[in-house]
This record gives sequence, structure tokens and C-alpha cells, in this order.
Amino acid sequence: MPVRASIIGASGYTGGELCRLLLSHPDAELVQATSRSLVGQPLHRMHPNLRGHSALTFSVPDALEPCDVLFLCMPHGESSKQIARLIEHARVVIDLAADFRLRDMAEYRKWYEQEHPCPEAARTAVYGLPELSRDSLRDARLISGVGCNATAMNLALLPLARAGLIDRAIADIKVGSSEGGAEASQSSHHPERSRAVRTYSPWGHRHLAEVKQALGDLRIDATITAIEMVRGVLCTAHVEPTRPVDDKELWRLYREAYNAEPFVRIVRDRAGMHRLPDPKVLAGSNHADVGFVIDEHSGRIIALCAIDNMMKGAAGSAVQCMNLAFGLPETAGLTFPGLHPA
Amino acid sequence: MPVRASIIGASGYTGGELCRLLLSHPDAELVQATSRSLVGQPLHRMHPNLRGHSALTFSVPDALEPCDVLFLCMPHGESSKQIARLIEHARVVIDLAADFRLRDMAEYRKWYEQEHPCPEAARTAVYGLPELSRDSLRDARLISGVGCNATAMNLALLPLARAGLIDRAIADIKVGSSEGGAEASQSSHHPERSRAVRTYSPWGHRHLAEVKQALGDLRIDATITAIEMVRGVLCTAHVEPTRPVDDKELWRLYREAYNAEPFVRIVRDRAGMHRLPDPKVLAGSNHADVGFVIDEHSGRIIALCAIDNMMKGAAGSAVQCMNLAFGLPETAGLTFPGLHPA
Amino acid sequence: MPVRASIIGASGYTGGELCRLLLSHPDAELVQATSRSLVGQPLHRMHPNLRGHSALTFSVPDALEPCDVLFLCMPHGESSKQIARLIEHARVVIDLAADFRLRDMAEYRKWYEQEHPCPEAARTAVYGLPELSRDSLRDARLISGVGCNATAMNLALLPLARAGLIDRAIADIKVGSSEGGAEASQSSHHPERSRAVRTYSPWGHRHLAEVKQALGDLRIDATITAIEMVRGVLCTAHVEPTRPVDDKELWRLYREAYNAEPFVRIVRDRAGMHRLPDPKVLAGSNHADVGFVIDEHSGRIIALCAIDNMMKGAAGSAVQCMNLAFGLPETAGLTFPGLHPA
Amino acid sequence: MPVRASIIGASGYTGGELCRLLLSHPDAELVQATSRSLVGQPLHRMHPNLRGHSALTFSVPDALEPCDVLFLCMPHGESSKQIARLIEHARVVIDLAADFRLRDMAEYRKWYEQEHPCPEAARTAVYGLPELSRDSLRDARLISGVGCNATAMNLALLPLARAGLIDRAIADIKVGSSEGGAEASQSSHHPERSRAVRTYSPWGHRHLAEVKQALGDLRIDATITAIEMVRGVLCTAHVEPTRPVDDKELWRLYREAYNAEPFVRIVRDRAGMHRLPDPKVLAGSNHADVGFVIDEHSGRIIALCAIDNMMKGAAGSAVQCMNLAFGLPETAGLTFPGLHPA
Repeated sequence: MPVRASIIGASGYTGGELCRLLLSHPDAELVQATSRSLVGQPLHRMHPNLRGHSALTFSVPDALEPCDVLFLCMPHGESSKQIARLIEHARVVIDLAADFRLRDMAEYRKWYEQEHPCPEAARTAVYGLPELSRDSLRDARLISGVGCNATAMNLALLPLARAGLIDRAIADIKVGSSEGGAEASQSSHHPERSRAVRTYSPWGHRHLAEVKQALGDLRIDATITAIEMVRGVLCTAHVEPTRPVDDKELWRLYREAYNAEPFVRIVRDRAGMHRLPDPKVLAGSNHADVGFVIDEHSGRIIALCAIDNMMKGAAGSAVQCMNLAFGLPETAGLTFPGLHPA
Repeated sequence: MPVRASIIGASGYTGGELCRLLLSHPDAELVQATSRSLVGQPLHRMHPNLRGHSALTFSVPDALEPCDVLFLCMPHGESSKQIARLIEHARVVIDLAADFRLRDMAEYRKWYEQEHPCPEAARTAVYGLPELSRDSLRDARLISGVGCNATAMNLALLPLARAGLIDRAIADIKVGSSEGGAEASQSSHHPERSRAVRTYSPWGHRHLAEVKQALGDLRIDATITAIEMVRGVLCTAHVEPTRPVDDKELWRLYREAYNAEPFVRIVRDRAGMHRLPDPKVLAGSNHADVGFVIDEHSGRIIALCAIDNMMKGAAGSAVQCMNLAFGLPETAGLTFPGLHPA
Repeated sequence: MPVRASIIGASGYTGGELCRLLLSHPDAELVQATSRSLVGQPLHRMHPNLRGHSALTFSVPDALEPCDVLFLCMPHGESSKQIARLIEHARVVIDLAADFRLRDMAEYRKWYEQEHPCPEAARTAVYGLPELSRDSLRDARLISGVGCNATAMNLALLPLARAGLIDRAIADIKVGSSEGGAEASQSSHHPERSRAVRTYSPWGHRHLAEVKQALGDLRIDATITAIEMVRGVLCTAHVEPTRPVDDKELWRLYREAYNAEPFVRIVRDRAGMHRLPDPKVLAGSNHADVGFVIDEHSGRIIALCAIDNMMKGAAGSAVQCMNLAFGLPETAGLTFPGLHPA
Repeated sequence: MPVRASIIGASGYTGGELCRLLLSHPDAELVQATSRSLVGQPLHRMHPNLRGHSALTFSVPDALEPCDVLFLCMPHGESSKQIARLIEHARVVIDLAADFRLRDMAEYRKWYEQEHPCPEAARTAVYGLPELSRDSLRDARLISGVGCNATAMNLALLPLARAGLIDRAIADIKVGSSEGGAEASQSSHHPERSRAVRTYSPWGHRHLAEVKQALGDLRIDATITAIEMVRGVLCTAHVEPTRPVDDKELWRLYREAYNAEPFVRIVRDRAGMHRLPDPKVLAGSNHADVGFVIDEHSGRIIALCAIDNMMKGAAGSAVQCMNLAFGLPETAGLTFPGLHPA
């Protein structure tokens, strides 16, 4: 019996990515995909890649039927208002918005500048990054999605943080345009956005809250720059270590952290063109490519992580969580290796 | 005494391009640039390249003062409603919208599906492509701008049309995203528009009306495809000739048509990477690059024209018209050669 | 027992795409991937997406072992010299070069300007486009790959050609940079190739030979223009019909031709942004998206086909042929729907 | 009498950019442009934008005639070998390679791993960034060009360095593909380079030598990442200040440093889309756009500088130096404001 999955808010980009993943998932079935504005229209009206891959049409959110897993792809702030009702529809709810990412309500208030509408739910939600919380995800009832920028930071820094090696970190993050979602705006207008190198978030404070929750109270800053790319995040974390380290130790730390991880690859080659992580090769893949280099003059560590923001940074991690919560093979439906060249 | 120039609707892309050209024009002066929504703001709020190049702020359209030349960059359909009033403000009015491009009011009605608000003005307007109507432009009072797609077709085909060589022509036109103007929309949203190869106008009918007015009643069709590019048009016209022609004759025809033209270059090299017209090298330049090849198997002529839609296809031609109307050197303010690589 | 597959020349782009497809194919196994220059190196040295997806290293071509199917990804002209020897290694050989695409040796001589090294093999080779030759592929011993530009033309025009509707056709083809293969050259240098709109083949003669072999002796011309894109072909075929047709008849012809085809989709929507075929949504997918429009003023038919040149235009079709030749489900290993946005 | 200028090595990208600038310079004349491989060919064979803008052909380097100013655009390491001879040809020599950027021969040896072929010349060369050494440039005989990455770092940090505010700086630098020059290579192959986010220089050590020479012995690191762009550099410098600063003080420091500079603009808006420096709007312009933000949580300063690597980072600064050395208006020939959108 496949896992019966439904999506609220399926017309956006993460909703579309979930549709794609669930439609080709060996152990799941997409049963409903809601969109208030597109009721009755075929999925491919918004997601042209799905033409011919599904006979489903968008349904009205109010007609939601019980299912095994319910994915929420609503605007930030919506799911937390409706969670009490929505959680009744499914054994597991996975929310891809920011609503349930922070457990500490004081932090939530600080960064989102409002009271959380449903703090009890927020406190029990499991953060949906298997590399951080695999065991808890197996029994989770409510799973929060991950922020894509936070995920790139978390996976770049996790081995260093665990080893107590981070004295100071600055994450310089490069992102593609799909991060902004499917809604058009002046800043996403192609003539303006094309080839922009736009520092749209010099501080990235909200993302840091997620990182500190995951890695501990680090001294970490972030700056986010939009570049010419649709999918993709590269986090370049510049780290001052608490003590001198050598390459060999870093190899050991990263291997220990990630060798058992099905989706994390260490990219640190000495030959060829692909020596360090690059999101270019990750579109559609659930991989997080992680790498590191030591600057021999200053001792600085450069720790990198590249992901597809819509996969490992959103829908891919969410499906990975579903796999864990339902006892399916963790990589089921997530084995696409990405394209090259593309 | 420089020509005193003002722009109505200066916040859009052609308005911004006019600002740029006029601010560095040796014989003109930009005195007013209006924008209802940006009154009091510096030009660089919308046109970041102009930061530091002008102390002007956007002014309210109602405060328009008399000037020598008035450029109209209003939405299509607006200038023809206000022309009776606007023409009082300046010795010469140059309208960059489509309102005054067609002289035949039946054609106008057919393609724009409405009566023209000011047919007397339309009949006296001079079509603003110097390669077609240089002499009339010298005495013009009202000059219509050109369509960028029509301009690429006109300049690709003019020598063939004059020689009566066109039996049948199909113009396959590739365009960049700036053609759509500064207003954001779902179809210009970067994730959707980036690397699209979108046949958004399979027929291009309105543009053909302009071509037929210029070149005579040809059998010509057009198809327009949006590609990854911000500025630029390439018209690839596939022409069945009325009789066999050889390369030598085509060289002669194109040379006769264009050797005296300051902005038309014949691009037909036998070596190197730049053998035929390519809009890539034309951004910011007022050149129209024109080329031709004969398919020796079928006798088809491939006639090409590449332009920057915002320059030769809009603001550049408009300034060229201003130069003619005021007896200035025709190339004044328009000598930027374009960038390579870019 | 999976089909045991090997690849000669696996370091190029089609070789890499075949590696990707075979590594995730449910019924096949990649056993050898040869590359003279990369012997002993992991596949991901050239194909970074495959990192972690295979422990295989490139092997020397001379060490080729017997296998069920052998894919040849050699430079054009090489496989026909070695075919007598290579065909002994496998039950089925699929050659992705141009060597065995033409059955008529006079045509081969004309376009490739040399005698075919192995005309007997060329005469028995089956053209590897299942939409044209599915039945013969089931028993084929030697299968030729398809040209990507020819495939886009063939699938755009097939229903019209079968109905005898083509009086004259001009194919205006837009292509991405991966068509040129993995070898760097001055014309593929990023600063030169980026955003180029370069008419590098005004006639496309060789490609037309493939089309005429498939569709009959049509009056057809082609012009090929490189645009900013890595993967993708859009063929815009402008067709003068032999008699007037209406939309309903075209719908019927395209449906008859393609309704049973697992990979051809008819794209002709009246709403949304995705009304006609666009290669943007096809990267990694084996779909051919086909559409058509009638120009009501001239009666011209615009027939379009978009493909990923590396998939339906090369490696995807080749795997589809393998599936047919080995009695596997035709879509096995080819179900990836493409990404959106990307 | 215009300044008579010649260029050695005019077929490369900086050579082409110099041709463009000199051909439209009001007070200079391009008299010779040498290229060993293209002798006798028109400039537009390599620089297609210059078609119709010059009748000059590439000449053989050995036929170099005396001139007023000689620009050297040779491969790194060449000019220092030939400088004794070349300096006889012109009153002023401006070398755009790295050969004369460092005055300290120990530093040169350390970063270039060889002895300098002409240390006496190196010691007298003036570093060609007018913002650093305007007065010395007026009397200079030998002027060294600037590194584009170093220039972006220098101008981002200069006001902070002068005020003694930099405790620690990390420069995260994003660059376009033209930085690599006109020579094609596997890593510049369009399918590989397009949309790459490739950390090709995790340390940027050589560039730092130039920065330390200019700003003093700072604790500064750099990481360089290639992104999708042809022209452009954005330096994002993350600075730990030696003491807390506020926005007002930074405004004062940047204004003091740059208010008299003709090409440096402070970009720090509170509204609109263009709040911080972005190289997107700088192609073809000699501007350096500089901005700064304080991270109020950590006190970190984010100091940014965007330039066109071929203009302010190479040919533009070189012409600015020529202007100074010959007593011309400093901005002569350098007033192009850049394009928007583009």
C-alpha cells in the first residue's frame, strides 16, 4: 500500500517540486494537490514538466480528504494558524514554511516580530533535516521544513561545530532566483534579475536563528547575494578555528559526520574541474555537496556546501523526512543524480 | 545653444535609455523627465547606471514646460489621446509608442481593434526610421517611433524589397526580455523567463503592418520567440526570391542600400567567429548589423538583421531622428560602439 | 538478469548522459565505460553528477569485454571504421555518431565528402528513432543514433509529411551549447558563447539528409542558430501547406501520429505560460514536445518541436532503442519528467 | 595634437577594450595595435564591436613605431623581460600585466615563484590606481596596471584601512568569465562555465599581495568564486572592526575618501532595487561602486565594491592613468555610464 500524500498549496514552486517527487515515488501516491486559484486545472498548467505525468487536477483546499501525509506549502505564517485543524487530516504533517522551524518562542518572536499562533505545536515539531534529527523523525507527527540557506550553512559547518572548532564564522551565501518563490515582483523581473549580483540580505538574521538552534550558540554571521541561477545555493563559510587544524583532521571530521549519510557527498578533488561543491551540478538532486579547504597563510577554514534549494533545501528533504516517518527506504524517490552539463 | 529635450514617461526602459543618451549628447540637454509615480526621486532610483550622471529628479507630467523636443514614452494608446495638447509644448514631438506608426487608419483599426483617437495627426506623422525617411524627418513636426521587431525586419529586407526580389518571406525573430518593458509580470518572472525559448507571438501580425507600410505589400509572415537575452533582436528572414540571384548581386544591393548609412553595417565575413549579425555585440549601440546568405541548394536567401531593441529599435533611432530634425550631425550622441565581450 | 551495457567513448557528453541513464536503469547494468585519456579515473572526474552513484572507473577501450549492448560515442567517422570488429562484442550495437544514419551511400558521399568505410553495415543499420522505426528496432543488430536537429525536425513534421501536406518547409532551429560536445574551442569560450545568437549553420544541409530519408523528398530548408542555453533544441518549422487546413484537422493528424507514443507530448494550450513547446522544461527528460499553430492570415503552419538534444536527441533515444531491442518496457529508465523551474 | 597611443598584444580582451576606449577618446589617437597571430587583419576580426569604427589592422609587434604612450597587454611575465627595450618607444609605458604591480621584490618572488627580470624598473613603476597614487601618476614614466580583484578589494576597504578600523577582513569575491582572458580552455567551455558557481581560488593569495602593498599589512583573506557573468567583479568584504563604529562614521569616512573621486560612487540607498553595489549595471563603465552596511548584531562591517573588471579593473583605469600622465581631463574618454537593463 503506497503512502497516500496530499499537498496544500501545490501551485507554488515547492508544491510543484513535491508533486514531481511524489508522482515518481515508488512507495507513495499523490492523491490531492490543492490550489485556491487553479481549481480544476491540470497540474501542468503551473508545472509544465508534469504534462502527461498525472491526470490530477488542482482541488479546492476545503475539499481536503484524510491522507497519510500532508505537505503544507502555504505562505509563511499561514500553516501555524491552521495547524490544529490540518493535523487532524493526516498521520504526519510536514510543513515547508518557516512556521515551525524554531522551537524557542522567544527566538521566533525576535525574528518574526509576532507571537507564534500555536506555540504548543511549534515545541513538538521536529526539524526536518535528517542529518540533524534522523531518529526523532521516525516518530514525528509534525515535521517542519528547513530553510534552504540554513541547510547550506548547517551542513557546511556541522562537523566543525560538533568538534568545537568554530571560533567565528561568516557565511557568504549565493542563491538563485527560485528561492523567492513563484510570485512575480519587480525585483524578479527578468531584465532586472538577469545576471544581477544583488546583496539583498546583508545580514540573513532569520536564517541564523535556525543555524544556532541546530549547531549551538555560534558566533556566526551571514550575507546573502542573489546571482544568475534559478536553482541553487552555495554557502561559503569562512571560519576562524578555535585552534590550528590540518587537512587530515578535517577529512576525518567530515567523513565521520557524513560517511553514513545517503545524500551528503564530500567534494574535495585535487584534479579536474569539479574540485569543490558547485550547485550547478545539483539541480533536481537531493545531494548536499560539502567541501573544505584550509588557508595555509591565515589558518582560516573555508567550508562549503552546495544544494538545490528546492530539493535538499525544501521538497527533497521533506520527502526524505516522509520516508523516515513511514519506515520507507530513506532514499526512495530521491535518487535522481542531477544533470551534467546543464 | 543645446536642443532642450524633455521626456514624458521617463521611468520605463525606453525613457531611461533616452535619459542616458540625452545626458551624454554633445548638442542636447535633458531638461525634464516626468514620472507620475516617482515625482521628486532621482533618475537613478529607476536607472541605476545614471547615478552621478544627473542631478535631475522625476517631475510631475502636469508641470511640463515648453522645450525644443518632447519624447513621449507612454503606454500604447495614450499619446494619441493627448497629442493635440502635447504638441503645443515643443517644436518637435517624437512618440515612441505604437500610436503614430501606421498612416492608414484602416490598418490601424484592423490591428489595434479601435478607432484612432487622432487620425489627422497620424496621417502627418513621419515614421522615425532614417533609413526609410531621412528627408521627411528633417522637417517633421511629429515623428513616430519604430517597432523594434519591424525595424529588424525592415532593415533585413529593404534592399531585397526595393529590387523586387521578394516572392515570399518568413521572418523568424528572436528577442530579449527588455522588449516587454519595465513592468513585471508572471511571464517575465526570472525563474520562468530565464533560458526560456518561448514562442509568444506565432504570427507577429501587428509588426507586419509596419513592415508592409515601409516595404510595400509583401507576402511576409513572422514568428517571434523570446530567448535568454535582455537586449537584442535577431531577425532571420527566410526569403524565396522572385528569380535566382547570386552572392555578387546581393552584395551590390546591400551596399547600395546601406553604404551611406551611418549606422547600418554589413556583416558577412568568411573567417572568425563573427560572420553574421549577432545582437550580442550590439548592446548600447545604435548599429543595425545586416547580413545575407544564399542557400545554394534551394536558392532561398537568408537575410538577417540584428539590433539592440532599446537603441536602433527605440531610443537610439528616436535620437537619430532628433538629430535630423534639428540639423545636428546625424550620429551625435550615438557613437558608442558596443562592448565585447559582454 | 539485467542487460549488460558498455560504452566506448564515455568521457564525452553523450557518453556521460548514457552513464547516467544506465546507472539508474531498472533493467540494465553499466559494466564498462571506456576513455583512452581517463583510464583508471572515476566517472565523476568528467561527470560530476555521478559522484557517489558508481564505483566504476574509465577503462581502456582495448580491454572491452563482451556485453549485451554496446554504445558507441566516438568522434564522427570512427565507428564506421571499427564496426566490423566492435559488432562482435555485443548482441546489439548502438552508434551515437553520424556514421550509420544514412542508408543511401550516395547521400552519405554527398554530405560527408568521403566514401563510407563500411557500406554493408550502413545499409543494414536501423535508424534509432522509435517514432519512425519501432518495429525494425525490435530485431536490430546495429542501430544508428539520431541527429538532434534532425529529430526535432522529424517529429515536428512527421504528421504533416504523412498526410502529404508539406509543399515547402523552412526549419528555423535554435540550439544550446552542449550540441557541440565536450571539447572546448574558441567559439565555445564562455565570454564569446554566452548570450550569443549565432547563426552558425545557415543551411544545415547534413541534417536535412536525415530528414529527407525519414520523411521523403520534401522541399525543406534549415537554418541553425546557437542561443544561450546548454541543453535544448527548438525547431520552428514554417510550412506552406499543399492545401488549406484547419486547426481541427491538425489536431487529428498530430493525435493520430503521437497518441500512442510514450514520449511525444502535444503542447498547444490556450491558457497559461506554457502554450507551445519550449526546451526549457525538458532538460533531462526524454520527451519530445510537439505543437502547431495556423497563421490565419497566410495559411502558413508553424510546427514546433522541442527536445533535450542529449536525451531525445541522443542518449535518451538510444536507451529507448535498447529497451525495444531487448524487449524491456519502452520507457524503462527514461521516466524523469524534467524540472521546473530550472 | 592628440596623444598618440599604441598597444602591444591588442588581440586579447584588455587589448580590445583599450582599442575601444582609445578610438573614441577625444584627446588620443590609436596608431598601432599589434598582434602576432592576426597581422594584417582588421581589428573587428577579434573585436566585433569595432566593425566600422576603425580602418586599422593588426600590425606585427616588431614594426612598433615611436609613440606617446604604449600600452602593454602581454601574457604575465613577458613585459618585464622586454621592458628595457619597450620603454624606449614611448614617453609613457602602461603595463596591464602583473609584472610591475609589486614593488617589493621579496613579495614578487614569494607569489610568482621566480626572480623579477627587471627589478630596477619594478621599483620605479607607479601603481596605476589613481585613487591611490594620483599625484605620482602625473610624472610617471612606467605605470603598472591593476589587478581587478585587488582593485575591488582596495576600493571597498580603503576608507576603513586609512582609519585604522580593520582588525580582520575576509573578501568574498564573485567574478565573471572575462577575467580569464580571451584564450579558450576546458574550464571556460560554455556548457561547463555557464551558471557555474565555482570556487576556483579559495585563497587568492597573489591578489592579497597587491592589497597589502596598497593598504598596509592588514589581516586579510580572500576567496574567489566564478559566477554566471561575463564582465564584473563584486567584492564583499566582511570586516571585524578594531572598535565599534556607527553608520554615520562610515558615511563620513567613505565620503571623505571618495567625494572628490570622479569614478567612485557610494551606493547605499534605502529604497528601490539598487541599494548596494552590483556589477550588473557597470559593464563598459569606469565606475567603482562602493557601499557598506553594519551588521547590528555582531558589529561586522560589510564593505562592498563592484567594478567592470575590464574597465576600472584593467583598461579603464589604464586610460585614466594616461589622462593623468598627459595632463588631460581625468575623465576624458571614460564617461560612458553603463547600460540598464542589460
